Amino acid sequence: MTVQEKKVIAVPQVEPRTPIPIQNLRVAGPTPLPPEVLRTQSFPMLNHRGPEFAAIVKRVTLRLGYFFQTASPVLTYAASGTGGQECALVNLFSPGDHVVAITIGSFGNRFAKIATAYGLHVTRLEFPWGKAADPKVVEARLKENAPFRGVLITHNETSTGVTNDVQTLAALVRDINPEALIAVDAVSSLGCIPLEMDAWDLDVVFTGSQKGWMSPPGLMMIAASPRAWEANKTAKLPRFYFDWASSRKKLEVWQQPATPPVSIFYTLDMGMEMMLAEGREAIFERHRQAGNYIRQRAKAMGLHVLADPEYASNTVSALMKPEGVDSKALLKKLREQDHIVLAGGQDHLEGKIFRIGHLGFFSQADLDQVMDKLELRLHEAGFRG
Amino acid sequence: MTVQEKKVIAVPQVEPRTPIPIQNLRVAGPTPLPPEVLRTQSFPMLNHRGPEFAAIVKRVTLRLGYFFQTASPVLTYAASGTGGQECALVNLFSPGDHVVAITIGSFGNRFAKIATAYGLHVTRLEFPWGKAADPKVVEARLKENAPFRGVLITHNETSTGVTNDVQTLAALVRDINPEALIAVDAVSSLGCIPLEMDAWDLDVVFTGSQKGWMSPPGLMMIAASPRAWEANKTAKLPRFYFDWASSRKKLEVWQQPATPPVSIFYTLDMGMEMMLAEGREAIFERHRQAGNYIRQRAKAMGLHVLADPEYASNTVSALMKPEGVDSKALLKKLREQDHIVLAGGQDHLEGKIFRIGHLGFFSQADLDQVMDKLELRLHEAGFRG
Repeated sequence: MTVQEKKVIAVPQVEPRTPIPIQNLRVAGPTPLPPEVLRTQSFPMLNHRGPEFAAIVKRVTLRLGYFFQTASPVLTYAASGTGGQECALVNLFSPGDHVVAITIGSFGNRFAKIATAYGLHVTRLEFPWGKAADPKVVEARLKENAPFRGVLITHNETSTGVTNDVQTLAALVRDINPEALIAVDAVSSLGCIPLEMDAWDLDVVFTGSQKGWMSPPGLMMIAASPRAWEANKTAKLPRFYFDWASSRKKLEVWQQPATPPVSIFYTLDMGMEMMLAEGREAIFERHRQAGNYIRQRAKAMGLHVLADPEYASNTVSALMKPEGVDSKALLKKLREQDHIVLAGGQDHLEGKIFRIGHLGFFSQADLDQVMDKLELRLHEAGFRG
Repeated sequence: MTVQEKKVIAVPQVEPRTPIPIQNLRVAGPTPLPPEVLRTQSFPMLNHRGPEFAAIVKRVTLRLGYFFQTASPVLTYAASGTGGQECALVNLFSPGDHVVAITIGSFGNRFAKIATAYGLHVTRLEFPWGKAADPKVVEARLKENAPFRGVLITHNETSTGVTNDVQTLAALVRDINPEALIAVDAVSSLGCIPLEMDAWDLDVVFTGSQKGWMSPPGLMMIAASPRAWEANKTAKLPRFYFDWASSRKKLEVWQQPATPPVSIFYTLDMGMEMMLAEGREAIFERHRQAGNYIRQRAKAMGLHVLADPEYASNTVSALMKPEGVDSKALLKKLREQDHIVLAGGQDHLEGKIFRIGHLGFFSQADLDQVMDKLELRLHEAGFRG
């Protein structure tokens, strides 16, 4: 062995830890966690191959099926929502497959971008940010662009606060191509906004733990229809970590092929128990009322909602920044003075909108505080509506 | 829209939640968490794009660099250790690239399997389970199999309890091919067993939060050398979720491209603070003593350690099941009667070995209890050593 120069890396000088502030966290995920859920995080670790953890995986998996409204197994991966997009694509398709990506914002674009990165032939059907996918336009463009193997649809576009009518879109895709593989990004909608995977004949649906599930980020949940499982057998895109077949096999004994994020299973287990106690339809109604409330208050104070009113999201609202107001300074003031955390805009909407998350665990009082303080701070910034 | 048959999925009947038992959890990850770390898990969520979380990412990232002993940025992903293997491969190589996979067990085989799944030309250098990679054999076989673009090495093979001499192996790879990309799976070693990424001229090193880091599973940490970053520019394997370049770019503002597992950052922040307080060399010494202790006790009670003594791991020990003892029944009794959780064997060693994890957070009393009860239960099972 050659003698090498020793490169010693010293202990870095860092800022000390400071307490995590208590905030009214209203970005579109991570979302605040109920105390009952936070409490589960201090439970001790378990062997991910043992019977105690298997019981949790079983309960969580079966209950996820209810929220997905699917009889197919719901698979889970340590990943973000973006991991869900990649997981859907690599399990369904082969290089060169033609997919139509219906995109209405940043996350729809990301879905298309991943498909391109994996060598698919991607046709983008883009709609202006703030608009939903227009079924008539989609129908015409799909016919023009046939044949296609798959269609990528965003249920709820987190970057614009718009919810697509997935049921209608899926039905018209199916009319044009009964064998099309319909992959739905339901990251920021599932559990909050109605979606019925089997009844709507969707082929892949995925979501993330940090959105409507009262859990921290770290777990991605995905289900595939029998048609998608059939496609999976011949899909040639390379995959291993996100492979469905190995996950399904391990799920027979309520395990995962790799080590799952044990603590996120604890939170999801408790989170879904609370969700079931509230009732799925009641949760949908709570989100519907929240969406209406935020939009009404925004309009009443003279703000313009980015979303087409017919398709405005009930989990996240994007509000246009008024002329002359510095949105970065506004968000900073809300965070520092009022402990309210909102999100800015993404891509070309950076600095032009701010977004309010109203999904998962929230009360009317939380939303009241957001809108009251927003009104106050906008007023201070000279905005008179 | 066509009227579709409504497929209603009812709320599933499930077993109710039961308390998570307090156990002496001695699998090779997940590992028990110190109370200080568990406490951080009840901290409220933060905006992953806000300044409070950026401060955590910065501190964690810099400190990881110290434990990796690298000046390169340490990237993090919501993933398991298997995700680390995939992340290393897709960022370094192009289809058809020749890589030599040195494998001494199940996880080495997995690394090779992922390389094959991604269309690399893989030469496996396999060593018998329980043995380390023999530098002389590796040298000869590498010369026979040149040219090669990369070499995959397991630092600590979790399935057999064997630690490769990565420093020596890397040096001889470098002698044969100065431009070879050396990717090291340090999932169950980093932070516990000495590894110096820059000084040993390793190109990729990755680990997982649930091993030596006093954290739950869910976060994979990976670093790449300047040589690896150069290779990354021309590496053509498809990737998006695990892409380094986008992660590095976002790390400039102490963020991740996708939503990171916020709660695991809390634990890692506290876990590393505790690790630094103990001192890196003191941690290594604690693991060295633990390895010696487990092996000495095993031998004293007449058990055979699978690992070649010269390369026996200081984080996980694989003990041969004695003739006539039902290892499944033994592990069950230990778990149910003594609340001690050990792991079985993997692949062809299933039922033939049991494995004891001694990494991360443990005390001598924890190890004493494991070995005392193991001795007792083996005696009850008729084993007289």
